[in-house]
Parts: sequence; structure tokens; C-alpha cells
Amino acid sequence: MSSLLDSINQPNDIKNIDRKDYKRLAKEIRRFLVNNVSKTGGHLASNLGAVELTMALHVVLDFPTDKIVWDVGHQSYTHKLLTGRKDEFVNLRKYKGLSGFPKRNESECDVFDTGHSSTSISAAMGLAFADKLNDVNSTVVAVIGDGALTGGMAYEALNNLSSLKRNFIIILNDNNMSISENVGGMSEHLSKFRIGEKYNDLKLEVEQSLNKIPMVGVKIAKGIKKTKDSLKQLFVPDGIFNELGITYIGPIDGHDTDVMIELFKHAKKIDHPVLIHLKTKKGYGYKFAMEDPAKFHGIDAFDKRTGIKRNNSGKDSYTTVFSKKIVEMAQDDKEIVAITAAMPDGTGLSNFKEHYPDRFFDVGIAEEHAVTFAAGLAAGGKKPYISIYSSFYQRAYDQILHDICIQKLPVKIIIDRAGLVGRDGETHQGIFDIAFLSSIPNLTIISPMSGEELEDALEFSKDFDAPIAIRFSRGDAFEYNVPVRTDSFELKSTILTEGENVAIIGIGSIVEEILESAKLLNEKGISPTVVNAKVIKPIDTDMIDKLCEKHTHILIVEEGIKHGGYSEAVLNYIYQHNYNVKCDIIAIDDMFVKQGSVPHLRRKLGLDRISIMNKVVEMLEDK
Amino acid sequence: MSSLLDSINQPNDIKNIDRKDYKRLAKEIRRFLVNNVSKTGGHLASNLGAVELTMALHVVLDFPTDKIVWDVGHQSYTHKLLTGRKDEFVNLRKYKGLSGFPKRNESECDVFDTGHSSTSISAAMGLAFADKLNDVNSTVVAVIGDGALTGGMAYEALNNLSSLKRNFIIILNDNNMSISENVGGMSEHLSKFRIGEKYNDLKLEVEQSLNKIPMVGVKIAKGIKKTKDSLKQLFVPDGIFNELGITYIGPIDGHDTDVMIELFKHAKKIDHPVLIHLKTKKGYGYKFAMEDPAKFHGIDAFDKRTGIKRNNSGKDSYTTVFSKKIVEMAQDDKEIVAITAAMPDGTGLSNFKEHYPDRFFDVGIAEEHAVTFAAGLAAGGKKPYISIYSSFYQRAYDQILHDICIQKLPVKIIIDRAGLVGRDGETHQGIFDIAFLSSIPNLTIISPMSGEELEDALEFSKDFDAPIAIRFSRGDAFEYNVPVRTDSFELKSTILTEGENVAIIGIGSIVEEILESAKLLNEKGISPTVVNAKVIKPIDTDMIDKLCEKHTHILIVEEGIKHGGYSEAVLNYIYQHNYNVKCDIIAIDDMFVKQGSVPHLRRKLGLDRISIMNKVVEMLEDK
Repeated sequence: MSSLLDSINQPNDIKNIDRKDYKRLAKEIRRFLVNNVSKTGGHLASNLGAVELTMALHVVLDFPTDKIVWDVGHQSYTHKLLTGRKDEFVNLRKYKGLSGFPKRNESECDVFDTGHSSTSISAAMGLAFADKLNDVNSTVVAVIGDGALTGGMAYEALNNLSSLKRNFIIILNDNNMSISENVGGMSEHLSKFRIGEKYNDLKLEVEQSLNKIPMVGVKIAKGIKKTKDSLKQLFVPDGIFNELGITYIGPIDGHDTDVMIELFKHAKKIDHPVLIHLKTKKGYGYKFAMEDPAKFHGIDAFDKRTGIKRNNSGKDSYTTVFSKKIVEMAQDDKEIVAITAAMPDGTGLSNFKEHYPDRFFDVGIAEEHAVTFAAGLAAGGKKPYISIYSSFYQRAYDQILHDICIQKLPVKIIIDRAGLVGRDGETHQGIFDIAFLSSIPNLTIISPMSGEELEDALEFSKDFDAPIAIRFSRGDAFEYNVPVRTDSFELKSTILTEGENVAIIGIGSIVEEILESAKLLNEKGISPTVVNAKVIKPIDTDMIDKLCEKHTHILIVEEGIKHGGYSEAVLNYIYQHNYNVKCDIIAIDDMFVKQGSVPHLRRKLGLDRISIMNKVVEMLEDK
Repeated sequence: MSSLLDSINQPNDIKNIDRKDYKRLAKEIRRFLVNNVSKTGGHLASNLGAVELTMALHVVLDFPTDKIVWDVGHQSYTHKLLTGRKDEFVNLRKYKGLSGFPKRNESECDVFDTGHSSTSISAAMGLAFADKLNDVNSTVVAVIGDGALTGGMAYEALNNLSSLKRNFIIILNDNNMSISENVGGMSEHLSKFRIGEKYNDLKLEVEQSLNKIPMVGVKIAKGIKKTKDSLKQLFVPDGIFNELGITYIGPIDGHDTDVMIELFKHAKKIDHPVLIHLKTKKGYGYKFAMEDPAKFHGIDAFDKRTGIKRNNSGKDSYTTVFSKKIVEMAQDDKEIVAITAAMPDGTGLSNFKEHYPDRFFDVGIAEEHAVTFAAGLAAGGKKPYISIYSSFYQRAYDQILHDICIQKLPVKIIIDRAGLVGRDGETHQGIFDIAFLSSIPNLTIISPMSGEELEDALEFSKDFDAPIAIRFSRGDAFEYNVPVRTDSFELKSTILTEGENVAIIGIGSIVEEILESAKLLNEKGISPTVVNAKVIKPIDTDMIDKLCEKHTHILIVEEGIKHGGYSEAVLNYIYQHNYNVKCDIIAIDDMFVKQGSVPHLRRKLGLDRISIMNKVVEMLEDK
């Protein structure tokens, strides 16, 4: 039997496939996704849950006139398959390969790039208003998960949607999960709507009318009429969406392609915004992903027969170090509380939750609330540790500045996934946090270089009576043991190896790379001083003074954006103090960093050991 | 008759005042507020609307155990009066004087500093959870306007509130206004709840029971029982809040102190979060403010008998220049659309709204949505101009980076109130935008020095095919006319006066100050070159090269935070290119800037003409 998927080579090709073959197509897509993602890694569970809803949308919509904005975007793999990108999946998430998210530069069917949560309704509204003003007759669809609906931005958009006065479809893909289990009043509200009798009537009628397709006549017409009547019954008159002026329809089985197609066809004709509530299962159709959807949310390559990850270093990641240490500290200090924004697993706080459920708060995908809530807890005398990924803190810049730092509240801002994260690309690289945080007054920023130092920093932060941020990378913690470990953590940079002529200063996990480059330099007869910056703000000016006095050259290496970063601040200090040293910086110069493996990206950006070595050699030659 | 207000000298003193005197007290407070604000300037309309609700809260709550978080905080004047700060109102909003917002360092009754919108529920939840964990029996109250409820953060908090499982009171102060008229589905939802029969029954019963206060016995008890029954009827079973697990009570007349007191007493006893919906009038009790509450939102000193502002320069502000120019441009270019976040008057876009209602969007206090919506409009081929104040763009940092700049969408980001804004203090100074925007790739940033240059920049931005930000200050536009005005605006810095030895580079409105300092320097025989930076990003390196070649000293003056700003970027460029010039910076060095008049703050920060002059003299002496 020839592959149905192979017959889809460009947008709208799915329209040539017979209705009775939809189930087979869905199966082929799932097999393709599991096969591919098991080799390349990627987002699996969310994509398996969105196969049928994507198929139904592609049957009903006309591309590129009609438009879909995918919230977060990690569920867009089927959309990519159905728009002719199948052959590119072999390079999924690789450098210059297919992105794991929608990208306007990949296809005209990707109308808006996403990555962070809860942006889809706002963006789609913009597209819809543009089409309205341009008199373009189109259907604009935002596909959003129930998790993304906990983000305030989504609500801001919903609050404005009734002003559109034009067809607009929100597909609420409700799997009762963010990345982990979903939380909050909205989630409870949604769970009250269960698939019931009315839906089953509709399903029956759609099936009847479809079974009769070869036979023309009165019966079909009747079937269709009945379908319309049943549809009307699915318009639920109360609930949050209707209160906001948006027609609610649902809930519907999000794995029933036939019913969704009928429904979407009708929804296209409604002259105002509608929300269609689909119930789906994350990981649908693949046993291991259904059993543990959080694990298969974003996953590295795995064995598809067992569901087991292929690579496991066995070492503790920085996240694991944090996870263990915070539980240990909270044992003795009852004032410690912990906050996550929908990432108990990703941030390692699920461990804390188990031990201290009363002191643990998962607020959903709501970084703004999370930060100000933490500020409130601190104002109430608690010691809040809030852990969020670097790129998602961008959402809470104002709250860090306005609610924590102006008041100097002792919140402990834990920044996970700082620096390059790799394959998720531009939207997820944690390369801006040093820049946007360093300009905020009253904030101390620490970037430990090893697992041990992270532990020390955490211990130190506990009783620190002002805002403090501790940032660390994705991946294995560097196992660097200081000769004699002391109890006292000081807000000071440290010299790791004393050398001469040139000093190399590094931040966080890049220090490991620098130590390797120092070994290479040693082979060349160059003996650099290697410095662990450790404290990003305030700069350890005593150390800088000392380095400037004893060296002719200083190189600062920063896995972050150059302007506004640590390196520029140090450079300015040196410049303003008239030191006679030559300085240079390796940092990311005014660009977004695309997807790729971290080692590969480091090489491309000159942040790997070889590039660092070459830079030092070049600096010393160019006296 | 002695003043009731004079008898209130510390928290809880209001409890000594007889119930029958509440109306008189409210009158005295209003008279005090109008008198004082007419002299000092400040937020008037919102404070006049909140007199009775604040009194009722102070009668029912015990300070400092019980806690109020004031959303935005500009309505907290009565709270300040009732906590013993009356005598400090003479210095309201002055340097080192009483703040116009809640400040923890002013009173233990100010439990959380506010300034930006929609933070109160998150912060109050933090305080409530802290008290819960500490076993402190307290009532925590968040007072939030219906305007602030359009902000997504407020929704994120509401979504989490049901997890509190403890008494918590939200006072929804609904005046159907943000700063201007309120917008959106939530606002329409709220307006459906009208004060009706049930409320009137309650009112009658409260009055009856109060009239009988001197007579003890059965009748009072009955009155109270009936009150409770009526109260129950005010619990409206449907609506958004109940769907989110929060008990809704209302609506209530927010100017009826007696009824509110009864209600708040009952609300304190409820063992889970409740929201009390008050209907109030902005500007209540002062004719001019009721007629034009937007004008009396934040106002400079005015004549209280006429309501007319005392100082009016007659000159166009930068905002007015923008307001006129954008209307003119949109006449010819139908692709131009304009977006504001609840500030049609403040941003000058009300003018645009009148001319092009279909192309104008007021999205409410929803900066995140506003920015991504603009990105969507740009993706749809429109030319969106979005105008927001500098400090409020902090809310949309991620959206600017993630939704506009990664995709390089040609959104025109208009930044009003950039630089020092003065009397609103730390939360409102626009001193961070250069720092947080400069580190974002793909963004061009312009800071015009005059009204004319702002017009040119706007004209230039129209067809600029990438993200562009144009920032300008509060206050009168500098009337600097170039000798020969050309049509071509270039992304280049310009030399205003050619001098020797020293070059002073300025940004935006500070250039006016520099030109004045140059006059003073001329008197001393020093002839500086004065440069208008104009383009913040990308730096005009040709100009910097030229300046470095022809001068021995360069001073950069920036009314913004130093680290991550324009000056540091220029300094780094100069340093890395080994120019033999001495450079210095005047900028705001790692501190929040408190309230005060802009000229006064400039003097304090060394940003005034005299300080600039002195700095130049000092630089030249210190060869």
C-alpha cells in the first residue's frame, strides 16, 4: 500500500485524500513523527496530540490565504508535514535545518514565528485586523493550549477580541497539561465542560451523513440539517469566553477528524470570534508518551521501542544540583518557599514539591505573576526561590525591576537555562539575561562555574537581604572541586590558575571551556591566568585592578549578548581607570543565535576552547 | 466646628469617629485633597473616587496586622491621610517629600510599593500566603480598578487565587475608566452588573439597623440578620470571577460608607477569596474632575475655582508633535495604523482616533498584547505605530524582542516619556529603555533632539522595513530649527556646533541642556563641539571616528541608566579602536531616581547645564 503521506508535497494536498483514509493518514503521521523524533530529538507528546486537529484544519482551510498561528509552536510538526516539509525532518532542530517551531522564512504557511507561550491570539488578531482593513476574505485561526491560556497575555487578547467583529477562530487544544499538569481556576473551569450527550448526537449524525456519501438525495440533506441543529446545541451559553463576548463551542473530541471538519466548516461562517474547545491527549497514539507526557514534551533522541533516552551522561545537571540543594536547605530553614511557572520538572522543583507541598507554588505559565507573587512573599518575610528559564524571565523584566528591585525585596531569582540552550533556537537561547538584569539597580547577580559553586551560592543567598539572581546553564554541572572548600562564599571573583601576561575571565559554564583552552595554550608555552568571574554584579573591581596591574592583556569570554553584558562593564571600568592593558571580548555581537547543538554554536560564535586559544594567541602577537 | 480630619493622627484613629460623622469626614477629605492637589499637582480624580471605600476599609481593618495593596497606587491619598501623613501633603511629589504612591519606607501601613498597573493581586497573594504559613490571622486586601483588570498579570493572579483557601478580599473599584474610558470584554461584562433591587434592600436594612443603634434589643438583632440575608443575595452565582473560583459580591455603591462597612465586616469572615464589586465615580464630589476625569487623572497645579491649569507654556510638547504628525502621515498612507494601551490622551493618539477610527486600537492596560498585536498587524502588511510610555514598555520587553525583533517586523515603537519624568518617582522614570532596547538585535533606535527632528524621524520610519523605536521626552519640544531643512533623514549623528579639543555628545532632550552648557563654556573661552547623537543604535561610528580624530576629549551625556546605555557602547567602540582620546560619561549610575521636578533631578544627577560645564572644565584640566 502506497504511503498517503508521500502524496502530500505542498499545501492543500491533503484535500485530495479521501475522507475514509483520514485514519490511515493520522497513523502514518504518528509513525513518521515517532520515528523521526526518536532519532533527532524534539517535541513529541504535544505533536502526537495535535495530529487530527491539524489535519482537520488543513482540510477546511485554504493556504496561504487562510492563516494559522500556533501558540508556542512546538505542536506544529504535522502542519509542517502537511505543507510539504517532510523531507526536511531529517535535519529537524539541527544547525540550518528545519526548525522545531513555525518560521516565516520556512514556508508562506507559517505566518507568525512563535516560541514563547500565549502570544497566538494577539498575533492572529493583528493578522485578522490587517486582512479586514485590506478587505481580504480569510479565516484566521489561533491554536492555543489550555496551558498557554494561563498566561496573562492570552487573556489581554481575549479581552480585546470582541472588537474584531469578524470571523476568527480560536482552537483551544485542551489536554489538561502545560508542560506538566495544568493549574488554576481557568483549568478547573475548563474541566467542568465534559464531552457529553450533545456531542455524541453530533458525532452520530456526522457519521451517518458520511456513510451515505455515495447515495445522493433527501437523506444527506437531512443529515446535514441535523448536524447544524446539533452544532447549535454545542454553543454553551455560559462560561468565561461567552462573558468576554466570544462564542464558545464544545467540548469536542480532538481526535475525531470527521467531526472537527464539519465543525470547522461551520465555524468559518460565523461573523464574530468563536472558540472551539477540543479535548485531546498529549502523546496520543504512542504508549510511552501517553504514559509520561512530561518526559516526552521535549526529548533528546530515544529508543522508540522502549521509550528510553539514548544518551545519559549519568552526571548531575546544574538543575539537579539546584533541585537537591534547595530541598536540603529548606529542611533547616522553614522560611524557604519555592515558585515555578509551569515547570516543576524542568526546574527540578518537583522534588521540593514532594517534600514541602505547602511551601511550593506552581502558578502556571504566568511569569509576571510568579515574580510579583514572590515579591509579595518576600515582603511578608519569606525567603522565596523562584526558578524560571532565562529566556522566559524576559516576560518578567518589569516585575523584577518594579516589584523586586525598587523595593529591594530579598527574592532569590534562579535563572535556569542561562546561556546557549541549543536546538530550540532564537526564542529559547538564554543570552539576554546578563544584559537586561545588569542595568537594574539593587540587584546582585551570581554565575557559578561548577556544581559545587552553585551549592555555595545557594547557601549564601539564603540570608542575603536584597534581591539576588543566580544563573546557570542547561546541561551537566562542571565537576570542579576547589582544593579546600570553605563555608564562606564571598561576592568575589576567583583566580583558578595564576599565569602571566594574559588573563582570561570567564562566566559560568564557559569557564570549563576556558580551562581547556588554557591547557592548549600551555602546550604553546603560553600560561594564562584563568579567572572565574562568579559575580556578575557588582563587578569585583579589586580583582580587575589586580589583573590589570599584573597583566598586559585581558580577555573576557561571555556566552551572552555583548552590549550591556558583563564584559562591557568590565571594559568600561578598565578604560575609565586608565590601565595600560589591552582588552578584548568574546561575546555574542548583536545577533540572535539560531538552533544547533551547543558545542556547534560555540564554535560558530568563537566561544569554544580552540577559538579562545586562537584569540589569546592573536592578542599576544598584536602588541 | 473642629475638623474631624485633624483628629486623625495615626492608623486606626478613624475608629474613634462616630458613624454619623462619616459624611462630614468624607467632605473634609475631599476639600483637603482638592486644596492640596491644586497647589502641588498630583492624581486627583482617582483619589476623589476612592474616599469612602478607603474610609470603610480603615474602619473595618486593623493596621498594621491587616494589609492593603493599592493597585497602581495613585488612589492611596486618603489611605495616607488616615494613617497620619496629613501634614506631609504640603510636600506631595516633591524631592524627598511625600510620594504620590504607596511606599514601604513611609509607613508600616504601606505594605507593598506600587506604580505600574495590575500587580496588586499577585503581591497581596504573596503577603496572604506568607501570613498563612506564619499562622498570622490577618485580612489582606487588594484594591484594583476595572482598568487595571485589563492587564494580563491581574488575570494570572485571579487564575491562581483559588489555591489560597483562606480569607482574601479584592475590592474592585469600578469607575468604568482606565485613565481614559475603559475597553474590552471584561469591561462590558462588568457593566452588565448594575446596582439593583437586592442592593437597595441591603441599603435600607443597613440604614434601619444603624438608626436604631442607641436602642438595644430584638430589633437590632433582626436588622443584622436581615442584613446577612440580603448580603447573600448579592452573591451573584455566575460571571467570570465565580468561574475562577472567587466569590463575587456586588455591585455596591462605592460612595456609601455605611453599607460598605457592613459588607466588609462580613467579607472578613469568609474563608476563601471574595471579590467585592464597587461602582464609583472618578472625581466624585469635585465638579470639574467629574466632568473631565481624564484631565484630572494626573494634573499639575491648577486653580481650584475654575479647574484650569496654572502653567501652560503654550508650546507644543513632543507628544503633541507626534500627535499632529501621525495624523498628517496617515492621511496619505492608508497602511498606517495606531495602537495605544489605555492612553489615547496621554500619547496624543485621541487625535488619530478621531480622524481614523477604523485604524485606531486602544487595547486597555495591556502592553504585552499591544506589542504582539502590533507585530501581527505588521506581519499582515500594515504599518503599525504603537505608542506607550518608556517605563510601561518594560512590561513588553519580551514581546519587543520575541515577537517584533526576531522576525524583524516593521513595527514603529513610539516611546513617550523617555528620560526623567519627575514627580511620579522611581516607578515612572523612563531611564531604562535605552539599556533594555539596545541589547536587542535587529532594532534601530532614534532619539530626536527637537520637535522638527521628531517629525523627520516619524516620516523616515514610515517605510523603514525593520523594527524601529523613536523615543522622546515628556514636556515641551525643543524648538531647534536647522538652517536648511532637508527631506532626507539619515541614520547619522549630526554636529550642531564645530568646536575644538572637546566634543560633547548628547541624546534627545538633553541636547538642549548641552547647547546651554556650551554657551557657558564659550564664556570661559572653551569652544566645544556639540553633537546630537540622534541615532542610538546602530552607533554612527563614522561620526565617532571623526570626533576621535579631531578632539582630545569626548563627553557623552545620557539621561538614562549608565550600564547598557548608549554612552557605554560608544566608549567601548572608542576603546576597542585604540583612539588616543580621554572619554567620560554623565549618566545615571546604577540607581533608581526618586521623585522631584525634572530640573531639580537633573541638577542632582549632574545632568544640568552647569554640571555639564563643570565636567568639561574638569576633564580639560585633568590632562
